[in-house]
Amino acid sequence: MASNSEHTSLTRTSVIEAHELIKEYIHYTPVHTSKTLDELASTPRSSEDLASTEWKGQEAAKPKINLFFKCENYQKIGAFKARGAFHAVSRLTPEEKSKGIMAHSSGNHAQAVALVAKTFGIPVHIVMPSIAAPSKIAGTKSLGAKVVISGPSLPEREAAIAELLEENPGATVIPPYDHPHIILGQGTASLELEDQVKKLDTDLDAIITPLGGGGLLAGTATAMHGTGIRVFGSEPRFQGANDGERGLKQRARISSVSTLTIADGLRTPVGILNWTVISDSSKLKGIYSVTEEQIKKAMKLVLERMKIFVEPSACVPLAVVLYNEDFRKMVETQAGDKGWNIGVIFSGGNTTVDAIAKLFTDPKFIPDRV
Amino acid sequence: MASNSEHTSLTRTSVIEAHELIKEYIHYTPVHTSKTLDELASTPRSSEDLASTEWKGQEAAKPKINLFFKCENYQKIGAFKARGAFHAVSRLTPEEKSKGIMAHSSGNHAQAVALVAKTFGIPVHIVMPSIAAPSKIAGTKSLGAKVVISGPSLPEREAAIAELLEENPGATVIPPYDHPHIILGQGTASLELEDQVKKLDTDLDAIITPLGGGGLLAGTATAMHGTGIRVFGSEPRFQGANDGERGLKQRARISSVSTLTIADGLRTPVGILNWTVISDSSKLKGIYSVTEEQIKKAMKLVLERMKIFVEPSACVPLAVVLYNEDFRKMVETQAGDKGWNIGVIFSGGNTTVDAIAKLFTDPKFIPDRV
Repeated sequence: MASNSEHTSLTRTSVIEAHELIKEYIHYTPVHTSKTLDELASTPRSSEDLASTEWKGQEAAKPKINLFFKCENYQKIGAFKARGAFHAVSRLTPEEKSKGIMAHSSGNHAQAVALVAKTFGIPVHIVMPSIAAPSKIAGTKSLGAKVVISGPSLPEREAAIAELLEENPGATVIPPYDHPHIILGQGTASLELEDQVKKLDTDLDAIITPLGGGGLLAGTATAMHGTGIRVFGSEPRFQGANDGERGLKQRARISSVSTLTIADGLRTPVGILNWTVISDSSKLKGIYSVTEEQIKKAMKLVLERMKIFVEPSACVPLAVVLYNEDFRKMVETQAGDKGWNIGVIFSGGNTTVDAIAKLFTDPKFIPDRV
Repeated sequence: MASNSEHTSLTRTSVIEAHELIKEYIHYTPVHTSKTLDELASTPRSSEDLASTEWKGQEAAKPKINLFFKCENYQKIGAFKARGAFHAVSRLTPEEKSKGIMAHSSGNHAQAVALVAKTFGIPVHIVMPSIAAPSKIAGTKSLGAKVVISGPSLPEREAAIAELLEENPGATVIPPYDHPHIILGQGTASLELEDQVKKLDTDLDAIITPLGGGGLLAGTATAMHGTGIRVFGSEPRFQGANDGERGLKQRARISSVSTLTIADGLRTPVGILNWTVISDSSKLKGIYSVTEEQIKKAMKLVLERMKIFVEPSACVPLAVVLYNEDFRKMVETQAGDKGWNIGVIFSGGNTTVDAIAKLFTDPKFIPDRV
């Protein structure tokens, strides 16, 4: 990316500046609360419920929890990714903008970059793998982006980008998460959440976000640093998708993950710069993981009780709050009788009725994000 | 119901008074907008699209439409029904309240009345038919109501109520729609919507609501009377479910309907008092109907594009806006190039992931509300 990029410091002040830059382009998404979910989160799990878990036979945790859900599923393009993309492109010089931008992605990042380019009137190429869903390719094209189809592997996508860069000298590649401007942009969601909870005459004690590449989590940890609001990450556990959690344990970033978790937005390993933030214990208090079944249970609650349409990845933090006894015991111990106000970021809502139908009826179904 | 009930006049002022009475108990639900849906609503349908309809071969309408969605799916108990129930019970005298309330319903009205009784600390009996979904019976019980199971037919339910009234002399039966206090309570949703659109620095030209028993539509028509905001009703057409539309044509209320439309909240015929409002052309400008497939298409858009979890009944107004050419031509003619701002009431979100999976995969599926 642009030459000025690397000089941006990852501080709360920089997140506030990022918010000033992008706020006219993004939605100020609402915060929802739910008495039903507060009650569920504050009810100890039954011993039968724990019997099939690693906490079998232990006394259930008794945390007191009030939840505040930041609905980034209502964000432009249906996910928080619009924030980072708007910020990264806003930081380019007029000359850089005129030379165009590009990205490779099959999911929310592709749409986010295409939307930003359309908004700013900038030429844009998006490399999408041949196995991407036709609806996603059509969605990206409908935003006016030139779509280039590549082979499915990362080297093939990167080769397609390299070729495009030769044809379009000076164009800027917008990375999906491993960049300070992306991290700062994603952090703006938590600034708004902090403020929205204050307007409800209370204060957050903690925020928990999903963790895939780490843009959202590192951004949140950066934004909340020094405020006293604790930040936690959450991951699927399936096929080692909890690379962040495992990385913290072994005190080293895990650079490769191969998982087909239903939380298809969280299949990537944590990025390098993202890891420097996430592994800093003054910024991040911990990472917790959940099973596929727990993600589905949480998703059903969000859909049926909260009436909010979310994708599986967005439900991972709530699954941790409801079903991870280590997290729940930590809250009980630290918060005591007063309990905690926990902010949960619903990261996105880009799924389909068809995928949900299969997710809840076909045990072998795997969402098609690649 | 209470003796003072019948004296309430069905006027906008009475709706405003109803709102004052209930506003501390209900949610002030949000209004959502969607550029995607505005564009869809303002795009003429293709000739292929019209080929399978009664408008085959006609030139497609070219209305200009901006939509404002009042999200009563986020209302307490997940539907607008909480408004009418809170209002009807608020109007009871302390003595009447102390003698308890009752209702027969298997759906949202049961939960609404149970919630009101719990909120006010009033004894409550709910008669539910034996074929009601176990989850709905459990839901009503969990609100503290005494549930009495009856046979499925209307006479059997009414007999159960009669028996309960003998055991509980002086108790008040809260009807689901055919009562002035219910109508006035349901009308409060449109008052809020009117105000919320004003805060967006614009004004509504029209509001369209679903029509089943007519509480919501008659309440909306009453609330908007004299404001210049036109009110429309919308119905499913399947198996004659469009009794309101047919009734307007024959200038007489249709008192009996037997339909298994997927819009299961709209299977009831219009109530008697509701009809007096709805058939008044100074209050209601028209009723339009749609097919089952059109309801499903609209529902898919609301879920996937707007990320809002709604039940099929809630999607009937949007289906009219998008797919009923008579409605669309009327808007084109009346609104011209300026277009209309149309308020749409998302009446509720009480469905399940399981029902949605079946609705979109099993062509023979019929939702189980009775």
